[in-house]
Formats: sequence, structure tokens, C-alpha cells
Amino acid sequence: MGIITISREFGSGGRELGKRLADELGYGYYDREIVTAIAEKNKLNEQYVSYALEGGMFRNFPVHFGRTFSYSPALMAGESRLFADQNKLLRELATAGNCVIVGRAADVILREFRPFNLFVYADMPSKLQRCRERASEDEHLSGREMERKIRKVDMDRKRYHSMISDIPWGDRRGYHLCINTTDREIKSLVEPVAAYVRLWLEEQGQ
Amino acid sequence: MGIITISREFGSGGRELGKRLADELGYGYYDREIVTAIAEKNKLNEQYVSYALEGGMFRNFPVHFGRTFSYSPALMAGESRLFADQNKLLRELATAGNCVIVGRAADVILREFRPFNLFVYADMPSKLQRCRERASEDEHLSGREMERKIRKVDMDRKRYHSMISDIPWGDRRGYHLCINTTDREIKSLVEPVAAYVRLWLEEQGQ
Repeated sequence: MGIITISREFGSGGRELGKRLADELGYGYYDREIVTAIAEKNKLNEQYVSYALEGGMFRNFPVHFGRTFSYSPALMAGESRLFADQNKLLRELATAGNCVIVGRAADVILREFRPFNLFVYADMPSKLQRCRERASEDEHLSGREMERKIRKVDMDRKRYHSMISDIPWGDRRGYHLCINTTDREIKSLVEPVAAYVRLWLEEQGQ
Repeated sequence: MGIITISREFGSGGRELGKRLADELGYGYYDREIVTAIAEKNKLNEQYVSYALEGGMFRNFPVHFGRTFSYSPALMAGESRLFADQNKLLRELATAGNCVIVGRAADVILREFRPFNLFVYADMPSKLQRCRERASEDEHLSGREMERKIRKVDMDRKRYHSMISDIPWGDRRGYHLCINTTDREIKSLVEPVAAYVRLWLEEQGQ
């Protein structure tokens, strides 16, 4: 039974790699699906759940929310419940097994399941390029604004991670393999990475 | 024409991986050979050359040399020449091509050759275990002393690296792939890593 977690820098192609890896291995794939499930269960807006789970609890609202914001205890309790729901759901997925989970700090939350933890990263020009190619809601952003967004998203991930783990987000010690996707086509990486992961699963008797 | 550099934590099995990778790819392998060649050219003791090149220039002599030591300008000039020799030799090797070079900060020194840079690491218990298994000159060290040695060797590498590169030693951004060898058998890693490297070489048109 294999569990693969993928942590990634924004724009590094980690999500695509995760999806393709899941296909290659015949594993389940979970990313947005987790947010959707939690939003439905709590009858909440998906975007809000996503925002809250990506560290909203630990920072002020971003500028485009119009004003800075102090959390009320009720809101804090609400978001704590979202985290509890997320962790519960992650454990259910892990128990069912054979899955690739992108983000959600699953590497830390599921550590007693001994997952294979992958970190995906790239240099800034490469991340900007990828973001431009897939641009949808970010289409209006200038290169500079996009770079700021990339740094911000990763900073939030780092901050959230630091609250639940001693090993910093992106620190090699927390991962089994760290892959630099600068100038790489994600598609072509899938096979050797899958081979590496398969070997690890075998060695672990999973 | 492929150049693969391997940087590694002491005891992580990086040297073994490098050797096996070179065998697998049919590449030349250089590690101690570089020290030997420089020692011969300069008619110096190999151990001294090794010590000097591993950061001796930037620190006091270690305790087992019996006393702390202030460098004389003559000695400094001598060691600078060793570095110059090493860098020249590394460039010659890179120009000849198709080689695996372990250590020597070859990732930085050869950067204009665009090598594939691999970083190999492991957790402390795993590194201690590996050191115990291969123990020779270190046989007399207790576990605690061995751990101190591991940290010291890596600290010297880190310090040396910081003098020639903006990216810290062991920071993922400086490498194409970072491999955690904790609880792994090095032998079994060779094939998937070689596949990954081959793909990269192909994509680079090397």
C-alpha cells in the first residue's frame, strides 16, 4: 500500500507531476478534491475553504479582500474545524491507500503512515513561464505581480508547515526525493520518478 | 558529453552512488584521483593536499594536529596554488567529458559546463550506520565522536562552498536532484537515478 505526498513550489509543475504519477502507478489522486469534499461537508464556499486551509488562519487577509482583518474567536474555531476535517479526510485516504496527495502538508500529517515524500521546485524564470502558460484567473497579472504571487503562496505554505513540523518546508531532510523541474518537461520526468518510487515501495514492503 | 557532479553529506553513500553511476553510464569517475594527481604534481603529501583542499585554508588545524595554527602568507600562497591546480584539473576533466566527479565543489567550479548536479543526503542514524560499516581509520571513534566528525566534515564543506557560491551547500536550488539515502541500499538506487540522468542528458542534447 503506497502513499505518495507531493509538496511543491508554486509554478514548479508539482501538481502535473503528481497527476501523471498517479496515472502511471494506477493510484488515486487528491488535491482540489480534498477542498471540495470539506466545503461540501461544511456547506461552505470552496474558495473560502481553500483559502483558510492554505494558511488563512495565520495571516491577515490579502490586499484584494479590501481591508486587514482581525480574527474573531468564532472564526478561529471554524477554521480549526476545517483543519480537523482535512486531517481526518487525509487519514481516511491514507488508510484506503495507493494514492498521490498534492499539498495539504500531507507529508507531515500522514507521517505515521510512512509516505514517500517528494518535493518539486524550480527557478523563478521557469516558474513564471509555467504560470504564464497555464494562466487563467491570473491572466491579468504582470510578470512582477506574478512573481510576487509565487513568493507569497510559498511563504504561506512555509509558514503553515512551520507550525506543524520541526523541519522547514522545502528542507531536503523532510523528503525522500527533491526534483528540480527548471527547463524540464514534466511529462518526461514521470517514468524515471515512477521507477524510483516503485523501488522505494518495494523496499518498504508496501 | 555529460558531466555529473555529486555533492554529498559525509556518510550518505554519495561516493558509492557516484562510482556505481559512473560504471552504469560508462563514464569516468574522479574523486581521490584528483587529490592524488595534485599531490604528485606538487610533490606533496596526499593527506596534506586532501586536508588543504577540504577547507584547511579557511580554518585552524584540527585538534589532533596538536595546536592551533596561524597561517603564514607563504603557506596561504601554497594552498591557493593547490586550489588553482584543482580547478584546472577539474576543467580538463570536464573538457574531456563523460565523467562523474564527487566533491571538490565541482558543481560550482564547473558551472559553465552545465553539469548535472546531484546532492546525496541521509539522516544521522543512517550516516552513522554507514560510517560504522566502512570504518577503517575511524574504527576507534565512539558513536558520539563519529557524529561529531560527520558534522565537522559537512560544516567544512559548507564553509568552503559559501566562499565560492551564493547558493548554500546542500540548498536544493543548487542541484538538479536531491536524493535521501536513509535506509536505502545504494546499489538499488543506481538504475532509476541513471535513467533520470540519461533523460536529462538527452534533453540537454548532451
